[in-house]
Amino acid sequence: MEIMNKQIILRDYIEGSPKETDMTLEVAKINLNIQPRSSPSSSGGAVLVKNLYLSCDPYMRGRMRNFHGSYIPPFSPGSVIEGFGVSKVVDSDNENFKIGDIVTGMTGWEEYSLIHKTESLRKIQSDDIPLSYHLGLLGMPGFTAYTGFYEVCCPKKGEYVFVSAASGAVGQIVGQLAKLHGCYVVGSAGTSQKVDLLKNKFGFDDAFNYKEESNIDAALKRCFPQGIDIYFDNVGGEMLDAVLLNMRTHGRITVCGMVSQLTLSYSEGLKNVYMLIPKRIKMQGFIQSDYLHLFPQFLKHIIDNYKQGKIIYIEDMNEGLENAPSALVGLFSGKNVGKQVIRVAHS
Amino acid sequence: MEIMNKQIILRDYIEGSPKETDMTLEVAKINLNIQPRSSPSSSGGAVLVKNLYLSCDPYMRGRMRNFHGSYIPPFSPGSVIEGFGVSKVVDSDNENFKIGDIVTGMTGWEEYSLIHKTESLRKIQSDDIPLSYHLGLLGMPGFTAYTGFYEVCCPKKGEYVFVSAASGAVGQIVGQLAKLHGCYVVGSAGTSQKVDLLKNKFGFDDAFNYKEESNIDAALKRCFPQGIDIYFDNVGGEMLDAVLLNMRTHGRITVCGMVSQLTLSYSEGLKNVYMLIPKRIKMQGFIQSDYLHLFPQFLKHIIDNYKQGKIIYIEDMNEGLENAPSALVGLFSGKNVGKQVIRVAHS
Repeated sequence: MEIMNKQIILRDYIEGSPKETDMTLEVAKINLNIQPRSSPSSSGGAVLVKNLYLSCDPYMRGRMRNFHGSYIPPFSPGSVIEGFGVSKVVDSDNENFKIGDIVTGMTGWEEYSLIHKTESLRKIQSDDIPLSYHLGLLGMPGFTAYTGFYEVCCPKKGEYVFVSAASGAVGQIVGQLAKLHGCYVVGSAGTSQKVDLLKNKFGFDDAFNYKEESNIDAALKRCFPQGIDIYFDNVGGEMLDAVLLNMRTHGRITVCGMVSQLTLSYSEGLKNVYMLIPKRIKMQGFIQSDYLHLFPQFLKHIIDNYKQGKIIYIEDMNEGLENAPSALVGLFSGKNVGKQVIRVAHS
Repeated sequence: MEIMNKQIILRDYIEGSPKETDMTLEVAKINLNIQPRSSPSSSGGAVLVKNLYLSCDPYMRGRMRNFHGSYIPPFSPGSVIEGFGVSKVVDSDNENFKIGDIVTGMTGWEEYSLIHKTESLRKIQSDDIPLSYHLGLLGMPGFTAYTGFYEVCCPKKGEYVFVSAASGAVGQIVGQLAKLHGCYVVGSAGTSQKVDLLKNKFGFDDAFNYKEESNIDAALKRCFPQGIDIYFDNVGGEMLDAVLLNMRTHGRITVCGMVSQLTLSYSEGLKNVYMLIPKRIKMQGFIQSDYLHLFPQFLKHIIDNYKQGKIIYIEDMNEGLENAPSALVGLFSGKNVGKQVIRVAHS
């Protein structure tokens, strides 16, 4: 059975941040039955899915650029954009997935996707947690927060923690994990609405709007008169440079985010890295996929806390595949409030 | 008994690097008997020493500046410069030290010093190793190399190690420890004579003169086609920025040196720190004094290897207290070949 399949296509490689016109909606035919099939018991066969939710993540900007030096290759111009999604299996040539299964993993920005690389797919067990949360709280961003905080920040109870982009998909979870760990937590964000969320919804001890501060260093000194033990860096650039001046002895800076973000945001260069020496600071980059062995314990930890009401999660849901490009573009001006997702279909 | 005591005085705080005219030789009287004495069994009493050898170290530039934010306070203008020395006890009001003992620790740049803060003093056991080596190979620079390499770099056999300022007091020891550990080691230095020392005396696998390279990135790619696992950074700045582009996944950068060096050398700022993320690099500052519990095992390790001829040590000895200012100034233009020390007296 062949039907029409709406798709979001990357026109060409971009420079800087993406614009809506860098992407275009096209329609192609797709056969809802997998052909040709491999042997009946194949575990490496393809899966055909109907996409329900798609994730907009900052790292995707890196894949839109013609840069091959990273740990993940760029998209192909003229092809469908790829990203994390939650999808329903409509046909399967793979013994690990059967029709009707709900899966999450790498899929295409389109209504239906034929997925050959099924290694990234994970079956979602039926639960009372919304399916889209598997793109954030229980997905890559949540796992980034979990591994970055526990494995890289080496937190201790009572320490002073600063989180930038703190209401975003990763930041909101880092801050709450730090509070659960007994830390004092301050976040920065780019609107007063987000600052309000940090203080009154996510339970941060304090928060500030960096766009309203004429001097970031002074803002940090106001929020952390005693200095910062842990900085979970989601933005790099000027904020990182100011934080370096406010770290405590033996502090840790966990650098999270994607190449593109850092190169774009601060072409002047970091001037305060020398502070690593007198303060004996450890600054470390990480990628969540190095810690996949911890994924089961991550899921348990987050689900337990979420069900007990100890972790709050906010997502920004846009309706319709056709609105995916503007949602992705909006990430880079901070338009989203919470984790940005797209609903492609209800079921 | 009162005698005349030559002293090197810091005239005033400096900016940038020190010049000889920032220091002046003066003569003051000193009593060679400690007065008044405390109770006979005091362990906190003063010690009067005759200084034999004084150490010129890059960190001292930091103490010549009016900057109070570091882990060690600045010198006082108009007062004697302080530094590590090897000295002979000529009078003692401290039960831990007796007349004739040879000690090493913080002393003054003068012929005789009355030392009240005796906590930093350590008695040197009679040995067939030259006394001045306790300012380098067996002193703070050697311990910096030892703790930085073993405790911060986390080296593994077979890894690719790069050392800057590699013929200096710290660098020459780091490189040799790395070779003993089974690493592939390349060093950079600022003259062809030093490059020759690295390759033919210290046993580095390769070395280059950074002043003769028009493109540091290209030099690193030539020496490390497979990339760098460990960078022991003694210089910061442009070299560090180029190394960041050549690190391997899970690489480690150990940042050693003093505030002043880094701030002065590269006001443009570091542009490549974003590489920490895709390569999951750990960049860490450290100070040897955090690891003083390891000092006994450091001494044993280095002395054993030195006596077996497995570690070579080169120092640059200047004669006479009056030549101390020029020796210190020379450090910052790379005039010294090996560890810079001053002989004040032969015994």
